[in-house]
Amino acid sequence: MTALTNEAARQTADDYPTRKASEPALLYRKHPVVWGDREGPIDSETLDSYEAKGYLQVEQLLTADELAACRAELDRLSSDEELKRDERVVVERTSNEVRSVFDVHKISPLFADLVRDPRVVGRARQILGSDVYVHQSRINYKPGFGGGDFYWHSDFETWHAEDGMPQPRATSISIALTENYVHNGALMIMPGSHKTFVSCVGRTPEDHYRESLKKQEIGVPDQNSLTILAEKHGIDVLTGPAGSAIMFDCNCMHGSGGNITPFPRSNIFIVFNSVENTCGAPFSAPRPRPAFLGARDFTPVM
Amino acid sequence: MTALTNEAARQTADDYPTRKASEPALLYRKHPVVWGDREGPIDSETLDSYEAKGYLQVEQLLTADELAACRAELDRLSSDEELKRDERVVVERTSNEVRSVFDVHKISPLFADLVRDPRVVGRARQILGSDVYVHQSRINYKPGFGGGDFYWHSDFETWHAEDGMPQPRATSISIALTENYVHNGALMIMPGSHKTFVSCVGRTPEDHYRESLKKQEIGVPDQNSLTILAEKHGIDVLTGPAGSAIMFDCNCMHGSGGNITPFPRSNIFIVFNSVENTCGAPFSAPRPRPAFLGARDFTPVM
Repeated sequence: MTALTNEAARQTADDYPTRKASEPALLYRKHPVVWGDREGPIDSETLDSYEAKGYLQVEQLLTADELAACRAELDRLSSDEELKRDERVVVERTSNEVRSVFDVHKISPLFADLVRDPRVVGRARQILGSDVYVHQSRINYKPGFGGGDFYWHSDFETWHAEDGMPQPRATSISIALTENYVHNGALMIMPGSHKTFVSCVGRTPEDHYRESLKKQEIGVPDQNSLTILAEKHGIDVLTGPAGSAIMFDCNCMHGSGGNITPFPRSNIFIVFNSVENTCGAPFSAPRPRPAFLGARDFTPVM
Repeated sequence: MTALTNEAARQTADDYPTRKASEPALLYRKHPVVWGDREGPIDSETLDSYEAKGYLQVEQLLTADELAACRAELDRLSSDEELKRDERVVVERTSNEVRSVFDVHKISPLFADLVRDPRVVGRARQILGSDVYVHQSRINYKPGFGGGDFYWHSDFETWHAEDGMPQPRATSISIALTENYVHNGALMIMPGSHKTFVSCVGRTPEDHYRESLKKQEIGVPDQNSLTILAEKHGIDVLTGPAGSAIMFDCNCMHGSGGNITPFPRSNIFIVFNSVENTCGAPFSAPRPRPAFLGARDFTPVM
């Protein structure tokens, strides 16, 4: 009986309440960052650094040929007019240029192969200590000459509130398809911030995701919390050549600046979640987001 | 007779036509970057680098005490409600926070002293090879959490078109009052771009300055020219601690990104023009801008 009660409690308890209280709060993370026995392609030192800072970088994940193939696929997808009418494609507010394509591992066989690649999924399994499935995949385009910024946020805050992800046992990999400079909107992470959960204020409205993909309004960390985290942890700007990769914990406080340079910034972004952390009912939203934003099929990547 | 004719021609010829043609163009710079006999506080190597790249950096221009005094003065000016109604004060479009205060060398005795300081005006005289006067002075505030970007531009393009500055014989000094990181909207310069003049399209409307201080629309370099310059020269992001300084040629192609970090970015900015390059009638505008944007009093700094 006790075992059953605990099992039920684990599935419904909200360890990371957000969008429920009237005041923001900083909560300690209650779960590990690196899970399991740590076997895999990531060396021990890098894994320790990931645990401490919440992210790691891979200088060259893709070969030159693979990179060329990915970029050709990127161009093909962004110029596909039929795809522009698909719900899974998000365009820039001002220019109607493609900003993101979701579900790329389903839309593109090339990106499906990339997800299954041991260099990619093997690292995710190693960090999460279990089999994993794809919670979300997308390509981000940040065109030059004014690509917009992404304000500070924790992905896990959204996935917990809106997709029903119970624990921060997910990791994201961002593979650069163009060079990430400090000046063209590179990812900024507050290193170490993944060990603090910023509980946000505001109620999630119906179909919030439609607007939030263009500009986040609800689930936004308050300025006071961001100031505390930034002063404690500082801000790392993650640069790297095309073909390099960043993996980061789902609760990292991160964002990226705008891009007024002529150099576009494009990447493929895959979120792996542990099969032991599958999503249930949303913790702070009327219903789960569509499956292209937060998968409801938990079949492990094989 | 010849001398007189040449003198008259020099005052009226337009060596850097802009906002006149229907197509943009890249023109070679026709004038030196460093003028005169090169005596002064800048060492020879740094001066050579300024000539080549269009800018130089001074690691510590202000002492800690001077910096503290400047920051106190900055706070005083930005919280002066009476000053907010002054034409020389520009507020952020969205938040009504102060973005810039012009004419600070006239408004503030402290900043007047700073302009006259040999570390400041001495460097300007050395670069420009003559006595100099202040064409413009201002404080820029870039608040954290969303301070806007400044798109790419050459200051000289505006000063030539709208203020009637004949030649690119002016230099700007930007003194950091807060730390400039790569992530909080630091100055970006295309090093070497100062040797190319980007002739812009569009006609200057009446009283253009009122809008252009918030967001530049006319005199904006075209994307093709910016791409050529960025690919040729790259982009330098100029960081430095509070109290450091940057001097840059008036024709550098420069801009700065937005600032979503909690860290504000503030600086004092002084433009020195050679007394041998005083402004006449605007080259591409109905009338000169107000004197707080482009001085009409050419009294040298002593």
